[in-house]
Amino acid sequence: MNEEEKRPAFADRLFDAVAAKESPLVVGIDPDVTQIPGSLFDRPRQGESMREFLARGVQRFVEAIVAAVAPYACAVKPQLAYFERLGPAGLVAYEAAVACARAHGLLVIADGKRNDIASTAAQYAAAYLGPQRGRSGQERGSAGEWLAAADREGPKADALTVNGYLGRDSLDPFIQFLGSERGLFVLVKTSNPSSGDLQDRLVAPLGAVEGDGEAIRVAEVVAGWLEAFNRERAGRWGYGPLGAVVGATYPEELARIRKRFVHTPLLIPGFGAQGGGVDDALGGFDARGAGAVVNASRSILYACREHGDLPFDQAAARKAKEIKEAFQKALRST
Amino acid sequence: MNEEEKRPAFADRLFDAVAAKESPLVVGIDPDVTQIPGSLFDRPRQGESMREFLARGVQRFVEAIVAAVAPYACAVKPQLAYFERLGPAGLVAYEAAVACARAHGLLVIADGKRNDIASTAAQYAAAYLGPQRGRSGQERGSAGEWLAAADREGPKADALTVNGYLGRDSLDPFIQFLGSERGLFVLVKTSNPSSGDLQDRLVAPLGAVEGDGEAIRVAEVVAGWLEAFNRERAGRWGYGPLGAVVGATYPEELARIRKRFVHTPLLIPGFGAQGGGVDDALGGFDARGAGAVVNASRSILYACREHGDLPFDQAAARKAKEIKEAFQKALRST
Repeated sequence: MNEEEKRPAFADRLFDAVAAKESPLVVGIDPDVTQIPGSLFDRPRQGESMREFLARGVQRFVEAIVAAVAPYACAVKPQLAYFERLGPAGLVAYEAAVACARAHGLLVIADGKRNDIASTAAQYAAAYLGPQRGRSGQERGSAGEWLAAADREGPKADALTVNGYLGRDSLDPFIQFLGSERGLFVLVKTSNPSSGDLQDRLVAPLGAVEGDGEAIRVAEVVAGWLEAFNRERAGRWGYGPLGAVVGATYPEELARIRKRFVHTPLLIPGFGAQGGGVDDALGGFDARGAGAVVNASRSILYACREHGDLPFDQAAARKAKEIKEAFQKALRST
Repeated sequence: MNEEEKRPAFADRLFDAVAAKESPLVVGIDPDVTQIPGSLFDRPRQGESMREFLARGVQRFVEAIVAAVAPYACAVKPQLAYFERLGPAGLVAYEAAVACARAHGLLVIADGKRNDIASTAAQYAAAYLGPQRGRSGQERGSAGEWLAAADREGPKADALTVNGYLGRDSLDPFIQFLGSERGLFVLVKTSNPSSGDLQDRLVAPLGAVEGDGEAIRVAEVVAGWLEAFNRERAGRWGYGPLGAVVGATYPEELARIRKRFVHTPLLIPGFGAQGGGVDDALGGFDARGAGAVVNASRSILYACREHGDLPFDQAAARKAKEIKEAFQKALRST
């Protein structure tokens, strides 16, 4: 039994952090080279590629942001796409971001929106959330031991965002691999303008699992899979390890999903730069102010572009503090 | 105008390659450390991490496989999850695989099943398919120029697999970014056992776009987006740049999609280790034997595990040749 196995369930750690910080704020780490202050990029070193050079600046930016916002956030959510754009050097910067967040006591939600057929999904689970719980002996022989050692090398996240289009069996490897110690946030109702193209389409419910009443949305089909699992695994806060991504840009859908899927933690993006406000997100919370976390990315990271009076990290901290306090106030009064 | 802009459209390059090779075979590159012959892993070098050590062995394996199967395949499809599991060193091995495939004249389909909201999807497009067509001047200032230079550093793929759950606007950045020179394969009906959980659900069709007849499957909603776009962009072979992933494990659905979405190229996984046979894939082709490519991964890569009489690369070549010839024969007789 290794240390991982002794950790409390993911949802308990998440809502303990929200309670301790008095903040449901997740700071999205979307490091856009064209928005980062130019002063963070010095000069390419001898023999350094452009991607390595930029990744060094990104790492410096991210570490300063994480340190600045740590007092006001329960977690960070690094967006893998921005790191992947810089190739292998970008992935080094991603791992530095994860390590830095952990050093500041923050939970980490890796935003990769990954998934695939089961054998491949297991690779993603190991890559971002590994090492496998109770792994030793499962993959025998020297290669299996090497791989287990490799899985222990990179700093791992506490949760990963996942796309459920492939169906329930694509979630199984994550669940089997990880137990309840780490979590998933599965896309249910995303924050983008076209999210309804599939997610709002109505389908007939499937008897036992989904009821036999009126037609339900595709988004609710996916949420139903999560809830059915979470009901059996709910921890101290009443939530299981399989979260749902539901955008603040659709407040009515958010409130409906919160009411219907009571054991499923929500990750609410779309706040800030995407247009969602505090009031739009409130419907995602339970009566204790738990059950949901809210992500803001660009509005915090690049706050200095709107308020030029402060250094970028202090501007980010001020914005994060504002958001935290706005939610404190709003959640107290509900 | 750079070289990228002068290249023929993706679908034309793809089916030209199928015709030239007389093979619709795509070799999936899923490098599983526990399946790769142990002789390819020497010993960790001084100061080398386990991930770096394993990635070196993976790179050696992949380069030998690509060289061995090149005569029998039109393309390779590296599965990013296996590379990502080895962290930054794994991404170095991924880029080596892409470069090696190009050097052997093969097209490359990056299998990442990526997607996100538009601003993030644009990062994935740049990461795996960039640099942007006609990019210069679009992102001004030194940071924009740096990023454009970074996008030119890594070897890029010809197409990327994409998940459409977020809706049509999540596909736009790929399309705008890339023109027709590079392609996408969007998940429509995947090969896994639970793919029907969402993809087979019936929804009412939306008038103008989807007809006003009987209910259609979610898979067909997604295929309809691709077809509507491809119709306006069909090239010499009659196909547009937005392909659909449809598994050989669902031959009836495959044939139905081929008949209904006539300008949409198909990528057919699920052949070989997942259970699909030559006959199951035939319904995906048009009357000329074009319109589809078929992926086989494990059955080729690890062919030596079943037939121990040959070195791993020769066993892979033999299996790839067998599959190519089986399709040649079957497509001639239809």
